[in-house]
Amino acid sequence: MSHRIVFQPAGKQGEAPDGMSVLDAARALGIGIENICGGRQTCAKCKVRPIAGEFAKYAITSDPVHLTAPDAQEAAYRAAGMLAADERLACSAHIHGDVVVSIPPEAQAQKQVIEKAARERVIDIDPAVRQVYVEVAQVADRQGDWERLQAALTEQWGFGVLALDTKLIPVLGTLLRAENWKVTVAVWQEREVIRVRPGYAEGTVGLAVDLGTTTLVAHLCDLRTGATLATATAMNPQIAYGEDLMSRVSYGMVNANGADTLHRAVIKALNSLASDAAKAAGLRADDILEMVVVGNTIMHHLFLGIDPVELGGAPFALTIRESLDLKARDLGLRLHPGAYVHTLPCLAGHVGADCMAVALAEAPHRADTLMVIVDIGTNAEILYGDKRAVLAASSPTGPAFEGAQISSGQRAAPGAIERVRIDPATLEPRFKVIGRAAWSDEDGAEPLQATGICGSGIIEVVGEMLRAGIISRDGRFVEREHPRIAFDGKRGAYMLATAEQSATGKPITVTQDDVRAIQLAKAALYAGIALLRRHHGGEAPVRVLLAGGFGNVIDPQYVMLLGLIPDCDPANVIAVGNAAGDGARIALLNCEARLEADRIMRAITYIETATDPDFQEEFVNALAIPHAVDSFPHLAHLLPIDQTGPTAPRPRRHA
Amino acid sequence: MSHRIVFQPAGKQGEAPDGMSVLDAARALGIGIENICGGRQTCAKCKVRPIAGEFAKYAITSDPVHLTAPDAQEAAYRAAGMLAADERLACSAHIHGDVVVSIPPEAQAQKQVIEKAARERVIDIDPAVRQVYVEVAQVADRQGDWERLQAALTEQWGFGVLALDTKLIPVLGTLLRAENWKVTVAVWQEREVIRVRPGYAEGTVGLAVDLGTTTLVAHLCDLRTGATLATATAMNPQIAYGEDLMSRVSYGMVNANGADTLHRAVIKALNSLASDAAKAAGLRADDILEMVVVGNTIMHHLFLGIDPVELGGAPFALTIRESLDLKARDLGLRLHPGAYVHTLPCLAGHVGADCMAVALAEAPHRADTLMVIVDIGTNAEILYGDKRAVLAASSPTGPAFEGAQISSGQRAAPGAIERVRIDPATLEPRFKVIGRAAWSDEDGAEPLQATGICGSGIIEVVGEMLRAGIISRDGRFVEREHPRIAFDGKRGAYMLATAEQSATGKPITVTQDDVRAIQLAKAALYAGIALLRRHHGGEAPVRVLLAGGFGNVIDPQYVMLLGLIPDCDPANVIAVGNAAGDGARIALLNCEARLEADRIMRAITYIETATDPDFQEEFVNALAIPHAVDSFPHLAHLLPIDQTGPTAPRPRRHA
Repeated sequence: MSHRIVFQPAGKQGEAPDGMSVLDAARALGIGIENICGGRQTCAKCKVRPIAGEFAKYAITSDPVHLTAPDAQEAAYRAAGMLAADERLACSAHIHGDVVVSIPPEAQAQKQVIEKAARERVIDIDPAVRQVYVEVAQVADRQGDWERLQAALTEQWGFGVLALDTKLIPVLGTLLRAENWKVTVAVWQEREVIRVRPGYAEGTVGLAVDLGTTTLVAHLCDLRTGATLATATAMNPQIAYGEDLMSRVSYGMVNANGADTLHRAVIKALNSLASDAAKAAGLRADDILEMVVVGNTIMHHLFLGIDPVELGGAPFALTIRESLDLKARDLGLRLHPGAYVHTLPCLAGHVGADCMAVALAEAPHRADTLMVIVDIGTNAEILYGDKRAVLAASSPTGPAFEGAQISSGQRAAPGAIERVRIDPATLEPRFKVIGRAAWSDEDGAEPLQATGICGSGIIEVVGEMLRAGIISRDGRFVEREHPRIAFDGKRGAYMLATAEQSATGKPITVTQDDVRAIQLAKAALYAGIALLRRHHGGEAPVRVLLAGGFGNVIDPQYVMLLGLIPDCDPANVIAVGNAAGDGARIALLNCEARLEADRIMRAITYIETATDPDFQEEFVNALAIPHAVDSFPHLAHLLPIDQTGPTAPRPRRHA
Repeated sequence: MSHRIVFQPAGKQGEAPDGMSVLDAARALGIGIENICGGRQTCAKCKVRPIAGEFAKYAITSDPVHLTAPDAQEAAYRAAGMLAADERLACSAHIHGDVVVSIPPEAQAQKQVIEKAARERVIDIDPAVRQVYVEVAQVADRQGDWERLQAALTEQWGFGVLALDTKLIPVLGTLLRAENWKVTVAVWQEREVIRVRPGYAEGTVGLAVDLGTTTLVAHLCDLRTGATLATATAMNPQIAYGEDLMSRVSYGMVNANGADTLHRAVIKALNSLASDAAKAAGLRADDILEMVVVGNTIMHHLFLGIDPVELGGAPFALTIRESLDLKARDLGLRLHPGAYVHTLPCLAGHVGADCMAVALAEAPHRADTLMVIVDIGTNAEILYGDKRAVLAASSPTGPAFEGAQISSGQRAAPGAIERVRIDPATLEPRFKVIGRAAWSDEDGAEPLQATGICGSGIIEVVGEMLRAGIISRDGRFVEREHPRIAFDGKRGAYMLATAEQSATGKPITVTQDDVRAIQLAKAALYAGIALLRRHHGGEAPVRVLLAGGFGNVIDPQYVMLLGLIPDCDPANVIAVGNAAGDGARIALLNCEARLEADRIMRAITYIETATDPDFQEEFVNALAIPHAVDSFPHLAHLLPIDQTGPTAPRPRRHA
């Protein structure tokens, strides 16, 4: 005798023999119901809800609940608040008649994380580490412990041939016997047992790491639910050996074991970061079963212990381009002893795993509308394309957008001027520094002590100087008499902060050289985008995504005014935040995405800007500021300026 | 146009296009000619000898040498004595007419080692580590170094997907550039690059290790030729924690981290041993690319860091039974950083990887004649069978055969009495101690200072006591008056060495308890063999192989007289020496043999002596000494005893 069973919401249905558990019926029909214990009533994860009424298509008219009555175990879970009144455990409920059950979202084996951000980001949860509970045969001829565990994993969970992490060998026998041959096992990539815990246990966590030149960011994620449990950040300790990447490359070249020193510094910092993130979630670093790492090519290579000297000059040869899976311990990382590290692939000498992570997160290769994604750092990495083709390039912007190579430039840190407005009538500026809530012309809780100008500040001040007529569209200072403006021959300078407003006691000025540096940087960026546009077929991008911290802070109006990016509807200029970190998290939570990253790496066409003659032409064409302010429609609302504060819509951004 | 080419001695032939090199022709015809450089005239390994005359079957009547003339490279090798006058390099010689070439044995890719021992042992050389020379593309789009190396390995040697050892990642770029992108690469199991050396380089070595309870033996082998380059031995440092295995198990149980202490001790000793063996061959420990390890179950588990406590009591559960491949560095072994360790499988709680190595070396599963292989230690491991079926058991002999549990017993070490003769007329003994060339009744260079009786000495003295009528076949001392014989009630004792002959100044005696201990031990051994014989079908074994050091020293006549083994032609009782070490070497040199060991492990039927009621019966039946001396034909020549020294044929033994 068999009965019809229908699983909602998928609507899948089939026949199940009388007496079969709902869980076994689901398995037989290929329907995923979450469970860790394999149907032993231990994990209380396989919840289903028997539902009333007909299931129209299949016209089940009999009593919709034809299941065995709840058992003592279910009653206990119900009493403990772990099972709702209308829910059953699929492993406890046995089928004795036609039935329709609904699987609540949390019990669906194929989980997704939907991120509450400006745009929805949906991540299918399919991690590399899977945890299962097994009961191992105690007496099995003369088989060894490991053979018996393997047999249990095969019989109870369908695993194929598995390896055992070497570090588990000495403790396996003890772990199996600790709870009477019941263990919870973490299996990596269906290939290797990396953790064994006595009895029934829950919890698998991983760490997604973005190795930034300045900042290290680590997200601790629950590998079963996809939830981000904690986020920890730290300064990149390599800053002590050089603020920018090229000085770190030089450090490696000039000092004996320099690269190794830099490698050890970042490993040490990651160990602290892992420990901090774990602590914040009430865990320990050795609970971390896997780590995914992204970073630019130089950080990627230094993380792996590779001297990045070859990345410092042509032909910018990568040692490792493809993704890697390594034992974390072999790199000196102190996570779980069996933990693996996955590094995303790089694309080329200047386009690293961070950019591939951005591609994974923003998926230009699946986009219907043509987009350009810009990640601005020492170089600007550009992805350009849509589902027809994606191209990538690195533009040699130099570090001006990061505040370097600017006379009063500095990193985005407390004291840095990040926003600027200039009254076009009086040429008097007002500005805001990082770490002080009030603008410079407002009373604030904190003293006004500007230390320099950061990347977003320099973009805004040059845009405002253009709006106020202090500079012309060719970038030259317009000769005029004003207390804020000084000339040394034809080379002007504008005093943004007075000596009294400055932490150093000296005025903070914007010089002709500073404007030129910004012009060179923005021309390089624009030329890179234009080059990719040519290679893609000439179509203009519909959307512009600004990745990284820079994109979060900068006002897209100024970005367009100065001509960093092509003109488009400002509503389509989107700051996507730390997309590289998002890509790392996606790869951590979904091992299919890792394969996709490898495919993306091979599918993207890399355009070498350095050797392309068109790049030089585009660069020269892009040096001038493209728009007269009054002819730039998107900035019209900035004229006249709102003296109470900025009214320009902030870029849309993701949390 | 194509030509006929015939390869001798195999006689394989085929057509080759005009101008093809002999090496390429051989490849195309599937004929293995040794080469490391892949046909780049770098390794001078692919020697062939063009031979004159007709090759009858194919009637090549044209000039037998239709090859291009020797080139400059060949001339240089010839001048350096690396190429004989009548030899050519197969990669240099190109085919322009029908030709017959002979491949000398050293250039045949499928090598064998033929051991010069009593029986020939032939080992096909097919190691897990293969070394190849490749030239890597210097410019290859934007590919990384590792991608380019992989591409070269695939194109030039046909490798599939390979992994890169993590420890190579930091140095790969430097190694590739050191000799202009020419490198020699060691690949493990066609799976992983474990070593990269700049330019063309030769040499791959591995270590075969037998972890004995008392002694560690390591053979350093050339993985290309199969030659044993050096052998190093050391005392097992675990002796400090207990001479016999069970006291080591207890040490692990009684002391915190006891098992770990024992593990570290053996790893440390192996590091010294590897270093010693390498030095003896003019190499260094980090030249060793692979290690194969065998040992009894307790040594095997301690080597892996497993507390052997479960092996100390029923059900004698192994933690790891099957073979393993591990990174040597993960065990703390200091070989090449990328080196692997392969451990042979164990069979059951008391039948270890050493016994499986013996099975691999002696191949009872392929034998036409029924054989019994006995490896005597604290337990005796017994293999019984032929190609129809092989059975295995462990008999609880106790350590009496090793000199333990004997009142004056000791390990086989200088000072131990190892051979004994007793004059049946006078009952006066003569004996030989280890480390002194002369017998006790002869003047010798060394002073006579006996310290005790070792295993072979106790077997001989009991046999001689029987021959002389001092004991009867039931093992009891015969009551008689003699200065050498003392009685305490009915319990007799025989003075083998006088106080003057002894290092301690006290006489060395053989007591009634000693005789009983030997009776118990030999009954256990015999009962084990008899049990296996029953399970195998009752047929008597034709050959008896005595493995291990004990078998090399003991006289098979006494072994049969006392009834340790079944009666058979003494010519068929063969001491096979360190067969476990031989098995380890076979597994090191031939990776197919490792699979065979796994198959043997699964094919052998294990008989549990402890629980088999027949064992008890056989044991009781075997307690008496089976033969009246004068009814034992094989010992007839011992009567009357040759007073000048032993004339009994020594067991045949392998070097």
